[in-house]
Amino acid sequence: MLGSGLIGANWATLFLSKGANVTLYDPQKTALEKTRAVIASAWQDLKKLDYSIGRIPDERLLITENLRQACENTDWIQENSPDQLEVKTKLISEVEKYVKANVPIASSTTALLPSEIQKNMHYPSRFLVGHPFNPPHLIPLLEIVAGMHTDPDLPQKAAQFYESFGHEVIIAKREVVGHIANRLNAALYREVVHMVQADIANIEDIDRAIANGPGLRWAFLGPNLIYHLGGGEGGYSQYLEHLGPSQEIRWNDLGSPKLTKKAKRKLIREFYANYGKKFLRELPRYRNKSLINLLKLKKGIKE
Amino acid sequence: MLGSGLIGANWATLFLSKGANVTLYDPQKTALEKTRAVIASAWQDLKKLDYSIGRIPDERLLITENLRQACENTDWIQENSPDQLEVKTKLISEVEKYVKANVPIASSTTALLPSEIQKNMHYPSRFLVGHPFNPPHLIPLLEIVAGMHTDPDLPQKAAQFYESFGHEVIIAKREVVGHIANRLNAALYREVVHMVQADIANIEDIDRAIANGPGLRWAFLGPNLIYHLGGGEGGYSQYLEHLGPSQEIRWNDLGSPKLTKKAKRKLIREFYANYGKKFLRELPRYRNKSLINLLKLKKGIKE
Repeated sequence: MLGSGLIGANWATLFLSKGANVTLYDPQKTALEKTRAVIASAWQDLKKLDYSIGRIPDERLLITENLRQACENTDWIQENSPDQLEVKTKLISEVEKYVKANVPIASSTTALLPSEIQKNMHYPSRFLVGHPFNPPHLIPLLEIVAGMHTDPDLPQKAAQFYESFGHEVIIAKREVVGHIANRLNAALYREVVHMVQADIANIEDIDRAIANGPGLRWAFLGPNLIYHLGGGEGGYSQYLEHLGPSQEIRWNDLGSPKLTKKAKRKLIREFYANYGKKFLRELPRYRNKSLINLLKLKKGIKE
Repeated sequence: MLGSGLIGANWATLFLSKGANVTLYDPQKTALEKTRAVIASAWQDLKKLDYSIGRIPDERLLITENLRQACENTDWIQENSPDQLEVKTKLISEVEKYVKANVPIASSTTALLPSEIQKNMHYPSRFLVGHPFNPPHLIPLLEIVAGMHTDPDLPQKAAQFYESFGHEVIIAKREVVGHIANRLNAALYREVVHMVQADIANIEDIDRAIANGPGLRWAFLGPNLIYHLGGGEGGYSQYLEHLGPSQEIRWNDLGSPKLTKKAKRKLIREFYANYGKKFLRELPRYRNKSLINLLKLKKGIKE
């Protein structure tokens, strides 16, 4: 596990909890000093989901500033360094010096395409994107994206790897900006920004709308299944035939805002005016507690 | 309550469960015949949320094909007829003949603007949109939208009315196609359609991505709060400063699909190829069961 920021440290904790040996590398000593606390907190979260995990297995966790040590004897490299091409390219070229030739190297990149990263690699076929969501020890979704030089068998192998830690894996059919879920996030957020700019609704009301409306359904069912239910007895085809035109009318009315300085100032001003400091401070705890309970609930409903 | 389709009947059941007298009107006898079963089923859902509601209070429920009877002695008209301007205009002009002058008339319209509907009314000032989400007895969100002739005091009065039934109310700052939440739904769905058309991901994987990723977070926190958490210690302003550019890169890459016949055929074909019949048949039950448990969970976390 390369990079011990929030993604790296939380995710490493999930891997640990499922029985893996984990080496957590970070070049910054200050980052590594915070890591133990993040792991301890994530471990408590995971324990609420599965009490049987016991105490933190220190004997299976190595935290190091030594990249060579982090790469030797590992079967999987997960790279979570800052999301900049130069940083990742440099780190991965170092990694390739130390790691065995058949070990896959996966990047958690959000903003970059796998082909961009792998093009300077010695063995680009062993590289792909394995993109988690924040916080990665609690959000099951994992997106796999192959680049143009990725071994065609690697995405399936990677899917098995991530599924063994409880992830819900989807494999993108091809690489594209934002992979899959963050394109949907971006599409939603673009209209949020538009509605705030155009004085249709304020930030807090938009958040409340999602969390008391569509968001409740999306926790269980994706948009296609929701529209299937909206189509009544005729289902998805009836929805598209009867209500497709109203979708297109809305699409034509959606905004194309720009994040100008002025726009950002308005968003930020309204955000902090709408939400109190105390509320914001308690948010990470509220989020994790909510997710833990929701995951338990979904598991219970499925079984 | 005018219209006894799924919205009208489910919503009437919520009102009943909170102690209101409800008259449910529908001009179609066949619709009314199905209504009792819908109410009985929704009542069971609500009983899981609040066991104290006891049996269905038949003495407070009147089901009728007689519009005059439905309008006399009522304090609130909620109109849920088919979402077409002519149908609603005609029905509301009838209603105005029978109802007391000071009684608000609210429409559940999804596709129409309040100003369009109210412009032919005798007393347009008493009209506004009160838009629920499916299923309205379980989804708390209620959007209030005033038209240009709406009494400026009515939105607040309406908010109190809906909140008394447990709704989470948001008042749009102005009327706009799709109100608020359905604009966000449409923005998301536009990119879904684009990704299916452009062979980036299939329908089931997109649904799984939402329900195992962003949807889990949106059940509790709207997109602005999620990005605040994504901004780390600097919060929302740091998010916009550091990751705003990556949002814009994604925005520029989002698709602008059209729902052509060919596009709809592909969507429908893939939808039914991805999902089995049995799965789809059990969906409404699964959705309601999930929502009931999620609402309980959220109430528990808040307290």
